[in-house]
Amino acid sequence: MNLTGHSIIAGHSIPGTAGTISGRDPATNQPLDPAYSLLATDQLAVATAAAAEAHATFSALPPSVHAQFLEAIADNIEALGADLIERATQETGLPTARLEGERARTTGQLRLFASVVREGAFRGIRIDPAQPGRTPTPRVDIRQRQVPLGPVAVFGASNFPLAFSNAGGDTASALAAGCPVVFKAHNAHPGTSELVGRAVSDAVRGAGLHPGVFSLVYGPGSEIGVALVADPAIKAVGFTGSQTAGLALMRTAAARPEPIPVYAEMSSLNPVIIFAGALTDDVDALAGDYVTSVTGSSGQLCTSPGLLFAPTGEAGDRFVAAVGRAASAASGQTMLSEGIASAWKKGVVELASQDGVTVLGTGTDGSSKNAPAPAIYSTELPDFEKNSAMHREIFGAASLVIRYPDVPSLIHAVQQIEGQLTATLHLRDQDHEAAAQVLPAIEQKVGRILVNGWPTGVEVGRAMVHGGPFPATSDSRTTSVGTLAITRFLRPVAYQNLPQGLLPPALRDENPWNLPREIDGESDIQNS
Amino acid sequence: MNLTGHSIIAGHSIPGTAGTISGRDPATNQPLDPAYSLLATDQLAVATAAAAEAHATFSALPPSVHAQFLEAIADNIEALGADLIERATQETGLPTARLEGERARTTGQLRLFASVVREGAFRGIRIDPAQPGRTPTPRVDIRQRQVPLGPVAVFGASNFPLAFSNAGGDTASALAAGCPVVFKAHNAHPGTSELVGRAVSDAVRGAGLHPGVFSLVYGPGSEIGVALVADPAIKAVGFTGSQTAGLALMRTAAARPEPIPVYAEMSSLNPVIIFAGALTDDVDALAGDYVTSVTGSSGQLCTSPGLLFAPTGEAGDRFVAAVGRAASAASGQTMLSEGIASAWKKGVVELASQDGVTVLGTGTDGSSKNAPAPAIYSTELPDFEKNSAMHREIFGAASLVIRYPDVPSLIHAVQQIEGQLTATLHLRDQDHEAAAQVLPAIEQKVGRILVNGWPTGVEVGRAMVHGGPFPATSDSRTTSVGTLAITRFLRPVAYQNLPQGLLPPALRDENPWNLPREIDGESDIQNS
Repeated sequence: MNLTGHSIIAGHSIPGTAGTISGRDPATNQPLDPAYSLLATDQLAVATAAAAEAHATFSALPPSVHAQFLEAIADNIEALGADLIERATQETGLPTARLEGERARTTGQLRLFASVVREGAFRGIRIDPAQPGRTPTPRVDIRQRQVPLGPVAVFGASNFPLAFSNAGGDTASALAAGCPVVFKAHNAHPGTSELVGRAVSDAVRGAGLHPGVFSLVYGPGSEIGVALVADPAIKAVGFTGSQTAGLALMRTAAARPEPIPVYAEMSSLNPVIIFAGALTDDVDALAGDYVTSVTGSSGQLCTSPGLLFAPTGEAGDRFVAAVGRAASAASGQTMLSEGIASAWKKGVVELASQDGVTVLGTGTDGSSKNAPAPAIYSTELPDFEKNSAMHREIFGAASLVIRYPDVPSLIHAVQQIEGQLTATLHLRDQDHEAAAQVLPAIEQKVGRILVNGWPTGVEVGRAMVHGGPFPATSDSRTTSVGTLAITRFLRPVAYQNLPQGLLPPALRDENPWNLPREIDGESDIQNS
Repeated sequence: MNLTGHSIIAGHSIPGTAGTISGRDPATNQPLDPAYSLLATDQLAVATAAAAEAHATFSALPPSVHAQFLEAIADNIEALGADLIERATQETGLPTARLEGERARTTGQLRLFASVVREGAFRGIRIDPAQPGRTPTPRVDIRQRQVPLGPVAVFGASNFPLAFSNAGGDTASALAAGCPVVFKAHNAHPGTSELVGRAVSDAVRGAGLHPGVFSLVYGPGSEIGVALVADPAIKAVGFTGSQTAGLALMRTAAARPEPIPVYAEMSSLNPVIIFAGALTDDVDALAGDYVTSVTGSSGQLCTSPGLLFAPTGEAGDRFVAAVGRAASAASGQTMLSEGIASAWKKGVVELASQDGVTVLGTGTDGSSKNAPAPAIYSTELPDFEKNSAMHREIFGAASLVIRYPDVPSLIHAVQQIEGQLTATLHLRDQDHEAAAQVLPAIEQKVGRILVNGWPTGVEVGRAMVHGGPFPATSDSRTTSVGTLAITRFLRPVAYQNLPQGLLPPALRDENPWNLPREIDGESDIQNS
């Protein structure tokens, strides 16, 4: 597969004028060809201007065109075949099976959004017909629909080179909403980004869309990111990454002459709570599953469990000992980059040095570079509550077990933690009363609550929420995974007393797009 | 009716320790008894703490309790009878008929939100049932609902002492969502606020709710506003008022350790566009209706038309001459306060001094104080486009007519204006082609598009949008009027594999609240 090392701006392959970067194989730290040229900000402006120009036509297309376009992207990604998986493996160190699964998730969510577009409920059609005889004042005809916000800037995440990258959830939901996308590639997997970017760009051309519907841009990290978010043509931002970068984008967006929404998914410790009943069964299995969830994908998952609350007492001691054994048996896997591996090491050294923190178990280093041994630590509730250093995400295979003496103490601790993507409860029937006491406090803090499972492995569906209160995300009112994600890129517009010929098709009486509608507050589902 | 001059904090009448203010009759500038004592920020913290405490129970109540509570507020407001209208007239100078209409709107929207609560679609119930046999991985049961954000700070607007005040749209939609409210009274109508605040507080007590569900606080304007928005217990903000104050609240909210959403409805010029066909009929009637819309409620309406685009040429000249005559025949009505009247005067003096602005017509001063003569000005498109001073809202009975030579020039001008609440088109069948060319540009700029009507007089219904791109509002994704407003105060939470007994009632299989649900993407409406 021939890689150019260029950005793709509105269908054109454009070399950048602001230096180059190279992807690296994290298993060897060796650079990978080709070098990728970085865009200067004036080059970036061509992409955002093209997106703004594309918006007028792209936003108005019928659902079938949007849906087929999304499906064509999925088809084109599949057509890349083994080349894509091979390049992604080289650039990320992630195992082939994991990347194949991620590709299936990526194409699956593109097709899921195509079905959401065909079904059409997200357009929020509401019709309040005229009531000319109403007293004291007649009512005129008013119709409401959701319209796309405009061009969206999407930032690729390092840890999901496919599912949270070019054609990942943010791009899929923005395109499904009818918004053009300017995609900023993550510099850790530039070749993977080019392959997928070409798949999207080919789909744009194949569907005969305005070429500004999609651009893939490479640039110097934070600099081009701020320029992109500050660009007046951009109307919303999707981001998955570090809290530092997410906060910088939030500040940039809020300081614009016209502030815009930022959907940043940033950091989460994903606490797990073990209730007493869960320790009456096989504690080795439970401990093993925990360590598997901590170490999967080298712990480089937004939902990796960074905290686990285990009861004090004999059963808890047995469980914690089993965790130590499982952790010691784990081996390191290649992390995404040298930088991420060294940040992880710094994080665990800092955690280990905190008062009251002890090592429960440390595994063995992997054989490649950047494959540090997973590590699990332990502390007591009072030490945890008073020390904010234990409340920071360590991105990678590390976790902290906190021993709690009773349910009121546990509730108090839950109230102290920051906003999270998830919280998980392990329990049996006899724990229901205790769990019911803790659940209201948990619900205030998270976007997803699980029982007797593990937070890693996020189902892409209609009911999923991958979001949560700040600082897990910048905006708790949404999700970045699942079909509800489309609502991030829409706003309502009302049309009062418009003649049929001037109404957009979505709102006309004859309902040419066959959309579900609410007429006078009653469902009028015609597209069964 | 006995007024105390005190705040109502969680059901208790509390005198403030930070000085006093008095309402004034704007028709005479005379102060009205009693003086209202202002809360210090430590007193305010009692209200926000009570709201935070109330959230746990209030948010979890069944729909019937929330709905009956909203209806009880409406009943209590009606029971205040003529006393409320009398006091509001004294404090605002608004005519009795207008205030009676506003009261009906206020109680009507409380009852509308009660019906929204009973119907329950806003809870967004989605159930993706388990698929244990799915390959390659089984699917676990995942359920989603919308939960209330937490305590909401609501700021009363000066221009709607009932419908955008204590028990107005922001409060009604926040309470309907299940969020406690801390309401900051507008200092221009403190007595009206106390009467309505008591009606709400009585309903809280009558329903046996936690008293922290509602507090009414008086305080020194911007200072207590910033303290309220900065308070960690507050999770969202509803505001209607000036752009200066709205921007200050947005900045405060964004700078918090935990940023929160601000729904600020700030400023709008509500452009009206006259197409050629609309001038083939009676131009005097059209001109008269325009001046009526500009001067109603002394122009102190968010949707008052501050700009009108009329074609150049003979028909346009006739229309503009008719506007001049109608404006000259209009007389001033008492404005809400001396401060608002003097800001209006300053605004029109500045507008009149701009290059290329001429007076089309000035009416006569009203007989009371603060009742300045309405004024309508005229300018040409090139002058308007190059001068930002003509793009500023003048709050009160003033408007600017802009003459445009052709449709392309009109489209260009629309692209230059800022975000607006509304845009209105006057047209006949022969104008449809021209209107269709202008509509896409208009849609980018506004929350509501009207044909052959006037933007003032906002219908409270299911399809209404009272919102729009910045700076009309701080957040174009919502509306502050109509049933969709409830979505401002909600966020999604997913529940994965929870046993029935631990699920909230809204998500249980047996559907005890009889809510509409989406199961595996299919509607399951049971509460017809």
